[in-house]
Amino acid sequence: MSVSIFDSFLTTSEIIAVFDDAAILQQMLHFEVALAKAQAQEGIIPQAAAEAIARHGDISMYDVQAIIVASRRAGSMAIPLVKALTQAVKEDEPSAATHVHWGSTSQDVIDTGMVLATREALKLLDESLLALSTRLLDLADQHLHTPVLARTLMQPAQVTSLGFKLAGWAAPLVRARRQIHIAAQNALQLQLGGAVGTLAVMGAKGPAVLRRVANELGLKAPEATWHTQRDEWMRLGMEVAILAGSLNKLATDFSLMAQGEIAELSEPTGAGRGGSTAMPHKRNPVSCMTALAAAGRVPQRAAALLAAMGQEHERGLGNWQAELAEWPGLFISTHGALAAMREAVAGMHIDSARMQRNIDALQGLVYAEAVSLFLAAAIGKPAAHKLMEELTQKAVAESRQLGDVVSEAVQADSELASQLDLNALQALFQPRVANANAAELARASVRTLRQALDQVSSV
Amino acid sequence: MSVSIFDSFLTTSEIIAVFDDAAILQQMLHFEVALAKAQAQEGIIPQAAAEAIARHGDISMYDVQAIIVASRRAGSMAIPLVKALTQAVKEDEPSAATHVHWGSTSQDVIDTGMVLATREALKLLDESLLALSTRLLDLADQHLHTPVLARTLMQPAQVTSLGFKLAGWAAPLVRARRQIHIAAQNALQLQLGGAVGTLAVMGAKGPAVLRRVANELGLKAPEATWHTQRDEWMRLGMEVAILAGSLNKLATDFSLMAQGEIAELSEPTGAGRGGSTAMPHKRNPVSCMTALAAAGRVPQRAAALLAAMGQEHERGLGNWQAELAEWPGLFISTHGALAAMREAVAGMHIDSARMQRNIDALQGLVYAEAVSLFLAAAIGKPAAHKLMEELTQKAVAESRQLGDVVSEAVQADSELASQLDLNALQALFQPRVANANAAELARASVRTLRQALDQVSSV
Amino acid sequence: MSVSIFDSFLTTSEIIAVFDDAAILQQMLHFEVALAKAQAQEGIIPQAAAEAIARHGDISMYDVQAIIVASRRAGSMAIPLVKALTQAVKEDEPSAATHVHWGSTSQDVIDTGMVLATREALKLLDESLLALSTRLLDLADQHLHTPVLARTLMQPAQVTSLGFKLAGWAAPLVRARRQIHIAAQNALQLQLGGAVGTLAVMGAKGPAVLRRVANELGLKAPEATWHTQRDEWMRLGMEVAILAGSLNKLATDFSLMAQGEIAELSEPTGAGRGGSTAMPHKRNPVSCMTALAAAGRVPQRAAALLAAMGQEHERGLGNWQAELAEWPGLFISTHGALAAMREAVAGMHIDSARMQRNIDALQGLVYAEAVSLFLAAAIGKPAAHKLMEELTQKAVAESRQLGDVVSEAVQADSELASQLDLNALQALFQPRVANANAAELARASVRTLRQALDQVSSV
Amino acid sequence: MSVSIFDSFLTTSEIIAVFDDAAILQQMLHFEVALAKAQAQEGIIPQAAAEAIARHGDISMYDVQAIIVASRRAGSMAIPLVKALTQAVKEDEPSAATHVHWGSTSQDVIDTGMVLATREALKLLDESLLALSTRLLDLADQHLHTPVLARTLMQPAQVTSLGFKLAGWAAPLVRARRQIHIAAQNALQLQLGGAVGTLAVMGAKGPAVLRRVANELGLKAPEATWHTQRDEWMRLGMEVAILAGSLNKLATDFSLMAQGEIAELSEPTGAGRGGSTAMPHKRNPVSCMTALAAAGRVPQRAAALLAAMGQEHERGLGNWQAELAEWPGLFISTHGALAAMREAVAGMHIDSARMQRNIDALQGLVYAEAVSLFLAAAIGKPAAHKLMEELTQKAVAESRQLGDVVSEAVQADSELASQLDLNALQALFQPRVANANAAELARASVRTLRQALDQVSSV
Repeated sequence: MSVSIFDSFLTTSEIIAVFDDAAILQQMLHFEVALAKAQAQEGIIPQAAAEAIARHGDISMYDVQAIIVASRRAGSMAIPLVKALTQAVKEDEPSAATHVHWGSTSQDVIDTGMVLATREALKLLDESLLALSTRLLDLADQHLHTPVLARTLMQPAQVTSLGFKLAGWAAPLVRARRQIHIAAQNALQLQLGGAVGTLAVMGAKGPAVLRRVANELGLKAPEATWHTQRDEWMRLGMEVAILAGSLNKLATDFSLMAQGEIAELSEPTGAGRGGSTAMPHKRNPVSCMTALAAAGRVPQRAAALLAAMGQEHERGLGNWQAELAEWPGLFISTHGALAAMREAVAGMHIDSARMQRNIDALQGLVYAEAVSLFLAAAIGKPAAHKLMEELTQKAVAESRQLGDVVSEAVQADSELASQLDLNALQALFQPRVANANAAELARASVRTLRQALDQVSSV
Repeated sequence: MSVSIFDSFLTTSEIIAVFDDAAILQQMLHFEVALAKAQAQEGIIPQAAAEAIARHGDISMYDVQAIIVASRRAGSMAIPLVKALTQAVKEDEPSAATHVHWGSTSQDVIDTGMVLATREALKLLDESLLALSTRLLDLADQHLHTPVLARTLMQPAQVTSLGFKLAGWAAPLVRARRQIHIAAQNALQLQLGGAVGTLAVMGAKGPAVLRRVANELGLKAPEATWHTQRDEWMRLGMEVAILAGSLNKLATDFSLMAQGEIAELSEPTGAGRGGSTAMPHKRNPVSCMTALAAAGRVPQRAAALLAAMGQEHERGLGNWQAELAEWPGLFISTHGALAAMREAVAGMHIDSARMQRNIDALQGLVYAEAVSLFLAAAIGKPAAHKLMEELTQKAVAESRQLGDVVSEAVQADSELASQLDLNALQALFQPRVANANAAELARASVRTLRQALDQVSSV
Repeated sequence: MSVSIFDSFLTTSEIIAVFDDAAILQQMLHFEVALAKAQAQEGIIPQAAAEAIARHGDISMYDVQAIIVASRRAGSMAIPLVKALTQAVKEDEPSAATHVHWGSTSQDVIDTGMVLATREALKLLDESLLALSTRLLDLADQHLHTPVLARTLMQPAQVTSLGFKLAGWAAPLVRARRQIHIAAQNALQLQLGGAVGTLAVMGAKGPAVLRRVANELGLKAPEATWHTQRDEWMRLGMEVAILAGSLNKLATDFSLMAQGEIAELSEPTGAGRGGSTAMPHKRNPVSCMTALAAAGRVPQRAAALLAAMGQEHERGLGNWQAELAEWPGLFISTHGALAAMREAVAGMHIDSARMQRNIDALQGLVYAEAVSLFLAAAIGKPAAHKLMEELTQKAVAESRQLGDVVSEAVQADSELASQLDLNALQALFQPRVANANAAELARASVRTLRQALDQVSSV
Repeated sequence: MSVSIFDSFLTTSEIIAVFDDAAILQQMLHFEVALAKAQAQEGIIPQAAAEAIARHGDISMYDVQAIIVASRRAGSMAIPLVKALTQAVKEDEPSAATHVHWGSTSQDVIDTGMVLATREALKLLDESLLALSTRLLDLADQHLHTPVLARTLMQPAQVTSLGFKLAGWAAPLVRARRQIHIAAQNALQLQLGGAVGTLAVMGAKGPAVLRRVANELGLKAPEATWHTQRDEWMRLGMEVAILAGSLNKLATDFSLMAQGEIAELSEPTGAGRGGSTAMPHKRNPVSCMTALAAAGRVPQRAAALLAAMGQEHERGLGNWQAELAEWPGLFISTHGALAAMREAVAGMHIDSARMQRNIDALQGLVYAEAVSLFLAAAIGKPAAHKLMEELTQKAVAESRQLGDVVSEAVQADSELASQLDLNALQALFQPRVANANAAELARASVRTLRQALDQVSSV
């Protein structure tokens, strides 16, 4: 594995495999093979040379560790790889050796290799995003009317619909899937410019070779070399960072609702998932933990990537290399967070009875705004406001239900009683009345989000 | 001014004004006036109340400092502002007071205020981007054939075209202008959700009010409240951060080329711009300095914004407030960097003679690849490679021009001499031959970039 | 004020004043006056010149805004200030004008000005740290035996002592106070090196002047110019950043314990502090909010400062200027967080009855480890472990108190009953027995921390 | 290897080995063995159990990959390791199995394991720091009088001593070595607190066990559990981050002076170190590249660590895990940068002739301040200033040496000629006169730094 022990802990085997040593070198070999093929088609190198090169494009034939160690001294991963490829080709077909990597530069092969690996990483993100979004929307549909406390500034605020919360969690994921797709269209482009980005060695045939290589690899042909202009690449990176932020939001909310004293949501239980004899009441939200840890690292990765943009002249000194080292971590962390939340949500336990009890514990005070509004329609806002101030204070002081205090006050005041419909008043204290508006908004939102999800073709 | 002394030093008065205390509060008042107007149109509040509120929508009528001081205790900038507005309305038209801010929450008015201020900031960015990009493209046109050293890993590499470099600097700015425009279409949206984002107080009329307020303010009507889902807002922020990265790249290259020992470019001179009697040879690149300082701060701002995305439940505790505090800095720094580079490039001095002397100082070694290629056509790549290795070593050891060494070697070898056209060989040592390919690519690139620039309508 | 509207919201007037425009320029003037005095004492400039300069060392005599505006063009805050000072001196005593700023460079005056301002900032931090630490230790003493839930991974774990938690919060603050004091001893040093840091203009008298200026300003005389070697300055900055991290931890815990469903702690109530008629049950933790927002911004500030360390040659281009702009924010945010938590803790409401109820709600399961240990003494660890697994499952399944289930099981098994002391067993379910160890550790810790607090002399 | 391909490229095999999967797990086993030994000595567990546990403390007996995979599900690296250890002990000595990890918690073993690994990492840093500092001081001694341009704002400024520059680079490294040593004394402490940090299971014997384990492992016994109070740990981390900043400064200066057009310094040449036939003039500074890339990543690591300090209650959810994952990267990057610069400086080529030519190219203008000072002694500062302004302009306009222009002017003015010693005037244009002050400061500085280096005992 190509990540450290505590990195590994926070991500998935699939994404580790994408950025593994051999995998990256394999993608670099794909570039070399495609380049030779294109150059043969354009008559720049012999067809036989391209064929010889293609016969040595499988990384399993090489000593990966030796290439890595040599790269440190050479100052580039490409130099020892190209050397090894050239050697292999030479032994096979001596005349082909000088045609390896022709007209290309180290950064061409490395950047294109990273683009190809990133395309694989995006497939993993896309699949997980689709699954998690769909699951959240399905749950939202099921819980359009389930009452739950909305909370602001970490305090219970009013009653909302669980479906509204679930749709709120799904929305940024649906948008992320679409935006990553769009950013990838520009970012997944070939890098091919030669020593200083001008394709000088290939002369007039350069543009044709470039189009052929891009086509062969299924990448966009760039408008110009992007050796030191990394903005399109960064746009893709920042989209992934934003996705991590939305996953952080989801994991934050989930873990807060999973606290023992709130206990509205919990993660799936199962083999090896927390559970301790010493503390049998604990239900550790280990998926949220993973997601919070992984997603929490991403903003700094994003900053490191942005900070590396000032790459000097035609090839940067240090900043490009830092970018290469930071890039995989962005995807490794984000896929880790995404996979963790996918698992947490797939088997999420929703305790709607507890949600109701948490509402009930607030003595009806969460309905105060609605009641005030109701009273205002009869007696005007100023009077309603003043009356509610008294009644809520009374409810708090006497630890009573606000509904009872209000009913009592209305009944005790004949003028009020004559103006107000007591049944309508009491209905305001029903959570499904209180969250009706939220439920309607959620219903519309789920519909829109499902459509958006359908419109994004897979990457 | 609303920034510290050393912040102020790195930015422009125009962008400071956009995010100034009174300016932000004024944008918040615009929201309150528009909300009241929309609610009156929907019959939720009396027309006279909306009119009374509109009469008090000018921040110059209020004590801004008192509002700021009160906000610290209240935990929100909106609370004392709404209180002051309510008081003013009450004194004007007592019955209107209870209709102020109706059905809205603090975050609605603050977020919308920031959106409105940001729209102004984007206008400043857009105008500067257009001017700087156009200037770079004009210069690129003028210098398509001007030879200059391309440099990789901070070392002279080969000869390229200055126009190619200039077009390379322009390209990410042209893209940034377009992408910021696109991101703004989603990010410049109304915030209106009430206490917990469900528009509960306005009931069935909520969506209609929302559309009216958005329309009145010229903003997008959001699909859902984005109180704690900040992804679309972040996309705009990250676009600005990427622009700062591209400006950092431009300022880095400029300052490296302006070093006394390279001296290919220099900043405009003029009143108050550097110049010292003690060190009369110095020509400090103060605009690059400003741009590097300002742009260098942006990655951390971006990280701070991304890190604030995990906002709890329906309103975050601390992270939303941190986001508010970080947001202006992103624009203030980026506009500072942009304005500095616009000034530097507008009056940039290009010393093409020095560019040529810097090329000449390298004894023709920068043409080695082209010569090797030329020889290979005659004697095959392996022999050409071997010969060039000898000849370049000889040129270095004897401190001679490679052109002379090569000509000498060819003339001394009758077989070589018979195969090669000596004039063609010597032409390879002409910089305008060496950069012909780059010039052609630059010409095409400038054309494409000009079209792209025309296609972006102003924000 | 010198900070933006949303920055201002998160800090204190006192620290804003320290880094205000005029305050910084005043500190810079202190440097110029001290320099002239020292040079007169060393006979480098006339005594009369030093006296003339001293007569113009009050910033209130200058147009601060004009200096700031001029600095943008000059590329340095010092240039227009020195110019204004020179002009003022010239009008007073013409012969003294050329002696202003003699042998010094812009960075000397700016860095020293920042050092002097920072010394003031540290006094504010120190005073607040002492007050907050003392208050936490006093509360810890009062609550050594108060039972409260310890929580791990956001789940209730076992019973601990509130005094233990309070001492835990105090400890890093006591350490921070000491470490900031130590770091300040090296960081609060004079900057004086002249154009390239060699004190060349003052020749052999340079070191003597340097010692006199340092002495006059009460600063350390540096071993060497630190124009571009910022490590000692950074050490102080990082200490402040670490303090912010510890404040973040305190605010995080406080806000979690203040959640409506947990309600063990709450912030002081009072005029203008939250409280809403619409949501009368809310008690927004606005001080925690401020602290979380302010402290949450600090890691990025720290990164920005560290990232600016690669300052080129003898004076950096852009990175020094970025450092200057970032530095005040570090202190402004940290003092904001510190003052907020000082206020929150000063008036903190501790609901020990609710702490007990939260323990009780867990059916005695939080004592399982202690019970298992007790059983093991009699029947061995393996048997005890197996038995407890059964009994805790039974307690959970039947929603009963673990204490009852265990007593029942023991009484039902004559062998067990004969081996165990039932009273001792039942004592394990008393929270003050469960937290006795924690209370003892806390008592020792408070004593040690009080001593440490006494040992740190004020900065 | 435990780092990704592009991480590996930027660091050393030695530091990778320290934080490798098996190495970390081995350190964790050291903790378990030491804990059992201490508990046996205190009579808490049988001596035979401690011996059985000690027999299974070698990680080579375990399936490391299986432990890592299991840890993802368990939410902790310690759980599967302790399980594997328990199983191994059980098979060896069944009665000992329940004594494994007794009274300890996952975080105890993981944190202590990281402390032990970090101690190894510090040894590597210390050795490299000593070697690099010593080499720089030796070179400084050799080059006390070597003239070289000092540069400010990326422009040539005045003449200084190369020894002065070298001592300037050494100073922060000498300080870093000392400060890391000091920080380590507090940070290298045992973690041992049990489930909620109160050592409850071990009761009154807890403190004695803690002292014994600390002693056994050669670590400081902590004043209190630091499960969620990470300030002392962070202080060590920040010291390492500051060291990386100083290395960044060194690599920045080196790479700027190694530019082809400046060419005052260059990296050692040798097998596999850059060198290209296509561009035979290039001498890529690959060590600087590595150092810049590695050190450039560190500020973001530092921010990630600081951002993880808000760990909840008695064990954090996600932030502790993020800290674990970020921590090794700090050391891996910093040691990479340090080793690269050690290699670059060990074989650094100093071209003092080129340094002199770069000075000469500035027409003597770099001596203007000294000349002005000399003139002022005779004719007063105002007249000297005015005269120099004219003469430097003349020198620039006519592309002449300032020395000639000044001599000519003095000779042409009989009054001036009579007041000035022409030989003394011309001496000012000698670089070794100009840098005499710098040389003296450097001599003193080298002496002080050597003493400081001797005083730091190895970690």
